[in-house]
Amino acid sequence: MRDHLRPTLPEGGKARRVYLLLRDDITSGVHGPGALLPGEQRLAESYGVSRVTIRRALDALEGDGLIDRRAGSGTRVSAAPGTEAMAADVTTLIPQIVRMGQHSARLLSFSYDVPPAQVAREMGIAEGERVQTAVRVRLAEGQPFSHLTTYVPEDIAANYSEADLANTPLYQLLERSGVRVASAHQTVSATLASPDVAQALECSTGSGLLSLRRVVRDARGRVVEHLSALYRPDRFKLEMALTRVGADDARHWEPVVGDRSAEDMEDGNGGKA
Amino acid sequence: MRDHLRPTLPEGGKARRVYLLLRDDITSGVHGPGALLPGEQRLAESYGVSRVTIRRALDALEGDGLIDRRAGSGTRVSAAPGTEAMAADVTTLIPQIVRMGQHSARLLSFSYDVPPAQVAREMGIAEGERVQTAVRVRLAEGQPFSHLTTYVPEDIAANYSEADLANTPLYQLLERSGVRVASAHQTVSATLASPDVAQALECSTGSGLLSLRRVVRDARGRVVEHLSALYRPDRFKLEMALTRVGADDARHWEPVVGDRSAEDMEDGNGGKA
Repeated sequence: MRDHLRPTLPEGGKARRVYLLLRDDITSGVHGPGALLPGEQRLAESYGVSRVTIRRALDALEGDGLIDRRAGSGTRVSAAPGTEAMAADVTTLIPQIVRMGQHSARLLSFSYDVPPAQVAREMGIAEGERVQTAVRVRLAEGQPFSHLTTYVPEDIAANYSEADLANTPLYQLLERSGVRVASAHQTVSATLASPDVAQALECSTGSGLLSLRRVVRDARGRVVEHLSALYRPDRFKLEMALTRVGADDARHWEPVVGDRSAEDMEDGNGGKA
Repeated sequence: MRDHLRPTLPEGGKARRVYLLLRDDITSGVHGPGALLPGEQRLAESYGVSRVTIRRALDALEGDGLIDRRAGSGTRVSAAPGTEAMAADVTTLIPQIVRMGQHSARLLSFSYDVPPAQVAREMGIAEGERVQTAVRVRLAEGQPFSHLTTYVPEDIAANYSEADLANTPLYQLLERSGVRVASAHQTVSATLASPDVAQALECSTGSGLLSLRRVVRDARGRVVEHLSALYRPDRFKLEMALTRVGADDARHWEPVVGDRSAEDMEDGNGGKA
């Protein structure tokens, strides 16, 4: 809860907004380690704010250890601005650090509810039909990196309890319920952190988040799970390898199937959503 | 330039921030078509702002046609809030609409520069070495949806001109230069729109964007292109199909290789970054 206990800039203010934008550019490498940032006047013009606002944003970045300011020589990005985001295979969603075991999950809510209309549509269930809804946060080394909302048809979810879900990966619970997971379709996009998600992920409201929706089906094509995942981009990113195959005009990209070591823990720990 | 010519809410203000968050929740389906939004007082508490600010954000959403407000019956999400985002295969990055031909590209800049340190590192080139840098915006039906920055080693880029790049897909130019594209590694994340990117994509500064980095190599492993792409999530999303294969403990996800029709135009039009 660092961001919440020690707010250096008021939520929703202009200085916080500029701070978030500059922090993003630094952690994503647009302004790499050692890079010289533009002067205060140029930043003020670029962001359409006053120099006072720029100075407050830079104060906060300096407090984070992301920049070094020296009189006369300008403002530079620090040599090692924070750690690299965890990389995860786009098929497993399991980041490296989770595979290594230093992770945990927090169950924020467990209920039987009517899902949002779009989720019901994607699940192919009738309007007004209830599903088991769970909200979890996943942490690596005590730091939250993902916010997961899962929806499971009521008859399948009847086979497990809130306590089960708090301790056992959902895929294991589905399989225990006789479900044979066969296929999935996933959509990757981006969104902004709403106040409740920001609190759970210990980031600022309005931060950019990577979003992923996965609709999981059994062999007969029935949706057995609907997952909405939100990830902090400073702590998590999706990776994939592509290879260029075919000849001449038929030449095209194909995904490289990941090495199996990434999958070994899938059925054995909490690393599965 | 709609957002810039008719700003309904000042950039950087609290009302604009709440507007962006609510708009995101509506276009992403968190608040689906016809859903009842919480009352002004509850929204004010949730976002930590005044009711006046909430009302101004709702005014802007109403102006966009995203919500309907009726005295006595509250605020509902409109029946058809905007269009669906284009979906694109994660390997080709070509959205459906681009395949259908109603697209174009705008070359914003073309120069020979030293790339950001992180790009140089990922390209495996020496510090201070120059590369050909191009910034392009891609449009579908006249609407910008992606902002592309590409870096190409100087000796390869020497084979094409600014005019070539404005009219011909980069992959065609690379192949014409004798390059044999063999493999790529891509990373998917999220970021916030900086002022210059927001202007190019005709969105608000601080909007959430889907970001993708792709490092493309030839058969000998040399980096021949570095691509940084930013996408408006309301207009573009990445999709992929997965299949669950293997038996028992070895059961795992594998990507499904896309149908070839998605690739047919890859070497024939501007749909390739």
